[in-house]
Amino acid sequence: MVKRLSSCYYHHFLKNNSNKSIIDHHLLNPRFIPSFINTFTQLNPPSPSPVAGIGNSSPVPLKRFLANYIWDLQKPSLIHMQNMSGIQYRNYGSVVSTVVQRNPSFSTINDDDIIHFKKILGAKKVIQEDEELQTANTDWMHKYKGSSKLMLLPENTEELSQILKYCNSRCLAVVPQGGNTGLVGGSVPVFDEVIINTRRMNSIISFDETSGVLVCEAGCILENLISFLDKKGFIMPLDLGAKGSCQIGGNVSTNAGGLRLVRYGSLHGTVLGLEAVLANGDVIDMLGTLRKDNTGYDLKHLFIGSEGSLGIITKISILTPPKLSSVNIAFLACQDYVSCQKLLFQAKRRLGEILSAFEFLDAQAMNLVLNHLDSVRNPLPSSVYNFYVLIETTGSEESSDKEKLEAFLLHAMESGLVSDGAIAQDFNQASSFWHIREGVPEALMKAGAVYKYDLSLPVEKMYDLVEEMRIRLGEKANVVGYGHLGDGNLHLNISAPQYDDSLLAQIEPFVYEWTSRHRGSISAEHGLGLMKAEKIFYSKASGTVQLMASIKKLLDPSGILNPYKVIPTSLLS
Amino acid sequence: MVKRLSSCYYHHFLKNNSNKSIIDHHLLNPRFIPSFINTFTQLNPPSPSPVAGIGNSSPVPLKRFLANYIWDLQKPSLIHMQNMSGIQYRNYGSVVSTVVQRNPSFSTINDDDIIHFKKILGAKKVIQEDEELQTANTDWMHKYKGSSKLMLLPENTEELSQILKYCNSRCLAVVPQGGNTGLVGGSVPVFDEVIINTRRMNSIISFDETSGVLVCEAGCILENLISFLDKKGFIMPLDLGAKGSCQIGGNVSTNAGGLRLVRYGSLHGTVLGLEAVLANGDVIDMLGTLRKDNTGYDLKHLFIGSEGSLGIITKISILTPPKLSSVNIAFLACQDYVSCQKLLFQAKRRLGEILSAFEFLDAQAMNLVLNHLDSVRNPLPSSVYNFYVLIETTGSEESSDKEKLEAFLLHAMESGLVSDGAIAQDFNQASSFWHIREGVPEALMKAGAVYKYDLSLPVEKMYDLVEEMRIRLGEKANVVGYGHLGDGNLHLNISAPQYDDSLLAQIEPFVYEWTSRHRGSISAEHGLGLMKAEKIFYSKASGTVQLMASIKKLLDPSGILNPYKVIPTSLLS
Repeated sequence: MVKRLSSCYYHHFLKNNSNKSIIDHHLLNPRFIPSFINTFTQLNPPSPSPVAGIGNSSPVPLKRFLANYIWDLQKPSLIHMQNMSGIQYRNYGSVVSTVVQRNPSFSTINDDDIIHFKKILGAKKVIQEDEELQTANTDWMHKYKGSSKLMLLPENTEELSQILKYCNSRCLAVVPQGGNTGLVGGSVPVFDEVIINTRRMNSIISFDETSGVLVCEAGCILENLISFLDKKGFIMPLDLGAKGSCQIGGNVSTNAGGLRLVRYGSLHGTVLGLEAVLANGDVIDMLGTLRKDNTGYDLKHLFIGSEGSLGIITKISILTPPKLSSVNIAFLACQDYVSCQKLLFQAKRRLGEILSAFEFLDAQAMNLVLNHLDSVRNPLPSSVYNFYVLIETTGSEESSDKEKLEAFLLHAMESGLVSDGAIAQDFNQASSFWHIREGVPEALMKAGAVYKYDLSLPVEKMYDLVEEMRIRLGEKANVVGYGHLGDGNLHLNISAPQYDDSLLAQIEPFVYEWTSRHRGSISAEHGLGLMKAEKIFYSKASGTVQLMASIKKLLDPSGILNPYKVIPTSLLS
Repeated sequence: MVKRLSSCYYHHFLKNNSNKSIIDHHLLNPRFIPSFINTFTQLNPPSPSPVAGIGNSSPVPLKRFLANYIWDLQKPSLIHMQNMSGIQYRNYGSVVSTVVQRNPSFSTINDDDIIHFKKILGAKKVIQEDEELQTANTDWMHKYKGSSKLMLLPENTEELSQILKYCNSRCLAVVPQGGNTGLVGGSVPVFDEVIINTRRMNSIISFDETSGVLVCEAGCILENLISFLDKKGFIMPLDLGAKGSCQIGGNVSTNAGGLRLVRYGSLHGTVLGLEAVLANGDVIDMLGTLRKDNTGYDLKHLFIGSEGSLGIITKISILTPPKLSSVNIAFLACQDYVSCQKLLFQAKRRLGEILSAFEFLDAQAMNLVLNHLDSVRNPLPSSVYNFYVLIETTGSEESSDKEKLEAFLLHAMESGLVSDGAIAQDFNQASSFWHIREGVPEALMKAGAVYKYDLSLPVEKMYDLVEEMRIRLGEKANVVGYGHLGDGNLHLNISAPQYDDSLLAQIEPFVYEWTSRHRGSISAEHGLGLMKAEKIFYSKASGTVQLMASIKKLLDPSGILNPYKVIPTSLLS
């Protein structure tokens, strides 16, 4: 018996009564959308999420939607920022979690400094206008706000080097800024730090079509690089919702994860070389373009993910994969988390080289999406399942890739791992599948108050936290789990009618302690920035953090680079 | 017209007269050897190469053959080692290239030290026997020989930590040693350093079949890990000829490349976490098992490839790929290097996710193999071509992978990139194809004297060096180019009737200068060790090397860890 949705547009799997799976090939479209992946997020954004407050459902610009989905904001319950006389409070709910004091050893900008910077850069690249500074002082979420009086726009490495050399000699603190799309307060000043924005350093230096190695300046906007490569038949090994604004220098500085990590790995693997400027203005040339180079310590890794606190990245060389034409997407149902795990195991083995996404959501997440988002339809409406999995494959051969996916799914159904499933037959269906997964954050926001945690955990333990939290909170809240199962990245979300300090006290520090106990990460891909600098010990051993602090002090003895962030301030004094 | 070899066992491509390619499917074997790759190098070793001297063709143990192939030894023309009164000479031809002086600030071992070490480890793990020390003092090639009087065999991190803490306090220099299979003198003492061998730290700590993450101690032998994973349906992301002896700790410390780099990337991408002991005995726990973790600086990368000079790696967590069943191999002919490049470009695009090797050799290399190795047959005997390319694919679906390769090759022939080619139909044919590529080093040794260089270069420039060298040397030598084209790794070999200082003077420093001018690497995968520590500036900028030296001094202020290696000694005083 073949089951088909009433809309008749899914390629639908279901076990028949004789326990033998049947595939309906009737609607198979042999030509799937080529280059789907490059256009998909642009055409099919997740629905809007309120940013300024709870329950605000007015439209939000596309870029914001996308970043909201991809980065899955850890939004505070109530945001109240104060910035006065050298103290910055960050207020979460009614609990003041951190107080940061301005480092008194830092100088403040004076007229001579401005004259000097104008001499280095020319007047146009020395920004003192209120309006532009207002934007540069404020983070993308309007959660953090600095009070810098100066933004500098160097055009090349030499100018940036001269700026830093001068700032270091004057003990002027600086904040490196790219697209300012970060979510942890890493890219805006905390107080009056000089903003150094790399947006004018935006040239593509070279591209080698044989090796796929792209060399470019740090200020290149990710989307521009994607477009450039698309014409050459290549892709960037990372893709983010914020690609229209974020700069590759910022991506590398924050070791951005994004949509392609499960396939192409982290930037530590794909970035082949860097040029960076140290706090004292020294230019460190590590801009190799080689896949193999074992001549000494591979220092570029120090700058990847150090959030601009060890140096400012000025140039990048990166290995770009060829663009593949065949993309297939399946939406599946599993009865338990163990089946999801086993399915991942099987997918890695049987789909292996073509697997490009493995996402999951639980029944609670699915219900939220179905109840709160009008545009979402359930591709598997015949029954209620405990877990849903979205699998995407990307390969070079349409027909064989599709066959491979179908054979894998048949096997998964026969072995009982998958209870039901559908394969998208065209772009719209693929979009609608992704929209379910992408719609979870928006649905959560519509449901009321939400406490959000973005955690990396061992896959086998990941869902235990969701279940423990459910027991812990009982009827007080709806505990929802979803995320990038293929990467071991859980989005734990706790939905409640309203924000409540007693509820928060039951969640934190429990969630961080639990994560720490299971050797997880309290920041899978956002970085630490200002927001989590003091929480680093939940994920890193004391000796390791001490070593980080030693390296920070070695490379930036005056601590002028992105102060108050990444490393606890107490370790740097 | 279809051309077929007389043996009738190749699946043979050739353009017909009407300029239309035809594939002979007649002999297609739909079931290729599964799990071929795991047994291949064991069953089909490259032929013996002389190790102790030139022209010695007596059999050499399998392990040695393999490492000889994989690492492609840069053998000096004549090896003459002296170790006397605190000076070690390394003699290449008749030119003394380096003199290393024992660091007078290091203590020498005394009876109290021995008593202390026995107290920490027990007597059995404190080795003073001449025979065992002789082996541990001598490198695998018998090229470097130290004079250590003591080897310690810690069984766990705590013991190793106590050893280092003590050595640091006494200013006793140490050399970390794993399988001692290195090729640059990095794993043996230069003088009387205490040898710390990690062979007793050889437990597998955990393996997660869902995530594929293996956690193990540093002393695990690579082949044991491969065997362990094989039973679980996984592979190590690296494979080396020396796998029977080398330890994973040594592999990670030297950032070993090996056969799978083109597919799975370097250890910087696949190693997820490390535990390491610093010179002062501090244990740095970076043993995460997460794919995504952006909480502070990713310090593990400092220890990957630093050759034991910043700390001793004690535990490793590594992401292992699933074992795939389908392996296909093609041997192709191209008329020029540009076609090889374009073929690589096409292979990356059209084979993309299943490409697992892309090797090349030039006509000179092919001739050497055919002239000097009886066991090698030319699969493409109908004509002489300028270049030969070996392509391997590894995937999860036999039939579709084979079809994909065939379609790719058809296209490559139609577009004129490939002039002729054959696909292996069984294990023996696959072995014979690999044997051609693997036989080059042996053939070179049989041909006479050989100067060997293992270089990383931009793919588009790589062969220019071979051609320039040919012009430079004229009739004096046979210049041969082959290697891992897919990784940009050239093995430049210069074959001559006998070693000749005037010839060497024409080769060096030209080859290093040329490599440096094209931003290449003078050590693609061997590391620097003692052999090339002073040559680091050919591949790394001065500021970068200075920063390396600063980090070395920060982490190991007394310089006790693997002294005289990696970083030029003059920078550390």
